Amino acid sequence: MSTLLHTVSMLTGEDVRWIDEGYVIFDEGKFLKIASGKPMDSELEQADHVIDGTGKWLFPGFVNTHGHAGMSLLRGYSDDLPLDRWLQEKMWPFEAKLDKASVKAARNLAMVEMIRSGTTTFLEMYHLFMNEFAEDIDRVGLRATLMRSMIGLCSEDEQVEKLKEATDFAKTWHNQAGSRIKTMLAPHAPYTCPPTFIERIVEEAIHLDVPIHMHLAETRKEVREHIQQYHLHPLEHLEKMGVLEEARWVFAHGVHLNEEHIDLLGRYQLAISHNPISNLKLGSGVAPISRMLQKGVKVGIGTDSVASNNTLDMIEEMRMAAFIHKGIEEDPILIPVETAIEMATKSGADILEHDHVGMIKEGYEADFILLDASAAHLQPKAHPLSHLVYAAKGSDVTDMYVKGQALMRNKELLTLDEEKIKYDANQEFRRIQSLI
Amino acid sequence: MSTLLHTVSMLTGEDVRWIDEGYVIFDEGKFLKIASGKPMDSELEQADHVIDGTGKWLFPGFVNTHGHAGMSLLRGYSDDLPLDRWLQEKMWPFEAKLDKASVKAARNLAMVEMIRSGTTTFLEMYHLFMNEFAEDIDRVGLRATLMRSMIGLCSEDEQVEKLKEATDFAKTWHNQAGSRIKTMLAPHAPYTCPPTFIERIVEEAIHLDVPIHMHLAETRKEVREHIQQYHLHPLEHLEKMGVLEEARWVFAHGVHLNEEHIDLLGRYQLAISHNPISNLKLGSGVAPISRMLQKGVKVGIGTDSVASNNTLDMIEEMRMAAFIHKGIEEDPILIPVETAIEMATKSGADILEHDHVGMIKEGYEADFILLDASAAHLQPKAHPLSHLVYAAKGSDVTDMYVKGQALMRNKELLTLDEEKIKYDANQEFRRIQSLI
Ligand SMILES: [Zn+2]
Ligand SMILES: [Zn+2]
Repeated sequence: MSTLLHTVSMLTGEDVRWIDEGYVIFDEGKFLKIASGKPMDSELEQADHVIDGTGKWLFPGFVNTHGHAGMSLLRGYSDDLPLDRWLQEKMWPFEAKLDKASVKAARNLAMVEMIRSGTTTFLEMYHLFMNEFAEDIDRVGLRATLMRSMIGLCSEDEQVEKLKEATDFAKTWHNQAGSRIKTMLAPHAPYTCPPTFIERIVEEAIHLDVPIHMHLAETRKEVREHIQQYHLHPLEHLEKMGVLEEARWVFAHGVHLNEEHIDLLGRYQLAISHNPISNLKLGSGVAPISRMLQKGVKVGIGTDSVASNNTLDMIEEMRMAAFIHKGIEEDPILIPVETAIEMATKSGADILEHDHVGMIKEGYEADFILLDASAAHLQPKAHPLSHLVYAAKGSDVTDMYVKGQALMRNKELLTLDEEKIKYDANQEFRRIQSLI
Repeated sequence: MSTLLHTVSMLTGEDVRWIDEGYVIFDEGKFLKIASGKPMDSELEQADHVIDGTGKWLFPGFVNTHGHAGMSLLRGYSDDLPLDRWLQEKMWPFEAKLDKASVKAARNLAMVEMIRSGTTTFLEMYHLFMNEFAEDIDRVGLRATLMRSMIGLCSEDEQVEKLKEATDFAKTWHNQAGSRIKTMLAPHAPYTCPPTFIERIVEEAIHLDVPIHMHLAETRKEVREHIQQYHLHPLEHLEKMGVLEEARWVFAHGVHLNEEHIDLLGRYQLAISHNPISNLKLGSGVAPISRMLQKGVKVGIGTDSVASNNTLDMIEEMRMAAFIHKGIEEDPILIPVETAIEMATKSGADILEHDHVGMIKEGYEADFILLDASAAHLQPKAHPLSHLVYAAKGSDVTDMYVKGQALMRNKELLTLDEEKIKYDANQEFRRIQSLI
């Protein structure tokens, strides 16, 4: 069932080429042709579906490299608190009451929000009901890298049990749902996982041939306490443990890293999920991303959960990544438009190990979004790449395709019941709140 | 012609009280009644118009304390350059070609964007065709503080001519359009206005009893060069000139100010327009706003022009003001939700000297917006103030009233021809670009 989308303006290929008027043909989930101009009559005749893209901009879908969709009922539940108090006094007590229905409501809400704002691929690091989430993603049609997150502050028996659950999940779901689902193993953080537990997780990751995702150096306090306990920065500690070269790592945050640490990231080809809004909102700081990019570190962009953001809008996150380093380093050249887009699309897909994802290119997966270019805040239309980064809103996204399947058309969700999901999110929030 | 708006959730009064279900009555441009619960039958009968606000959130309209609507064709025209090169190589050559039609197209586009994203009141600092803008604002129904901006890098004759134009404009339009229009005098900046010219402008401002608006300490370079030339920081220089106590000042930016400068701001009761996105994007830095607020300085929020932002969305600007200081100072307590909202509404109105504007309160001007609370990114609905600051989008704004007049209803603009304006913006952009 081939589809031809014509009369569309689009961003193509790794050379970030803008085509003012062109067309794409995709079939069996992949782009067969990307071209400028108008399609040939024979192409139009051969296509099973023909879509008119007049007035729309076509971009690769966004890739969100760090999040916790299961926490989505916690949007706005606690603002303006430091990370440790925010976790211990607000997040964890609420999460302790979560059950299957409430987590499902949270995840569904996250999927609606992600589709509406253009995210085709995302990472989910969570500890509850991950099998059910994988089943839902299979059905909904999104692309994701999933992991059963582990906190090791418990007995060894419990650690073993969590690791068994995590590895079972990773094995069961890796490359499933038509390869739309990948998996990782995920120790929560150095401050919640003792070194012996991390070592055991790394062994399993090597055995399963999946990457490891972990929060790293998010706050100054956490780094200070790690140094007090182990006389080493968490990243230096991991290096000393010998686990950096053995496995593929994707770290979330990486805020409190110095030049030597950035060199380490480069040397071991480690990847970072940059989550600038969450880092600002929780008062954690600003990750030295421009230095990382200069040293060849692969950087993706993530929203973290709506509890610390408070949206899953990758346009806002990409925009913040483009703004913040210019301002902090007083250098407006840093993170130009092309770099911001690359981090939010292709680099993210690479980090999450989705092959041939993140560009509009022949042979690539047909994961893309259409934006309505007619909004006042996108005029004059002369600079679409600039507008995507600096002016667009998630609400400008009108259509989304993943692996060639439409998940949203003209702002209507095709694989999720949005009204029911929004109703359930409010109901479940009230129910859990009443249990605390 | 009284209007009663019922079944609406709203933010009221200076104590930032949230009413889950209430109603408002306004007539002759002012709120007569703000109440919780349902209106009485007699109130419903007496109202000339009755509006159902079910599913909507009512907030004060936003007040944008710094901008240049006349530059709106320059959105995305030049990103990722330092301020001086950005001005000299890109902005000023384009602006040199602007004429009446292109500036009108730019201003109209700005008004559409402002109404769509909830800005009821704004400051305009520009040098071209300000009389025409005032006439348009009178007709369109927005509230504004306007000024003919002056650059003094010219002959004394030209300075005199500019000042005459600026004072004539200020006299003609102050308190016009049903008091919706206020005026100020506006030397562009200390680096573009010699001290003698600034002194002359201050004299006129005192004579006219209007405030003075000026860019101040936006970049490190500008401050360094001022110190090289005058051996004083620009703010210290103004103090030494004796002009700080003589007049009412509203400074834009105030990025490069130290503790002593902030003390000066407090001592002379000077006001600051905080423009965090423009300051980040141009690599200027981050203004020490949390210190200013602690010392009682009045702070409003501004977008600056779309050439350095690249939107006029006050929700995004307010959000950035709430995020950035938490992150930079690593203190998540700074600029809580209530402070962010106050800066973006009431404080802004005070700074722009619009009396009884910026709150939903009896006796206040009926300037307000309605937001559609049903979007996925606003669920669960439990925390509307948090959602306004941290999650809402300009596109959630559905209705706007200024002085009791509807400017937008259910996302339809009532006093501007949006389609024509968007068309003209593109046409005029191409025409001017072809002249450079
Ligand atoms: Zn996280
Ligand atoms: Zn300005």
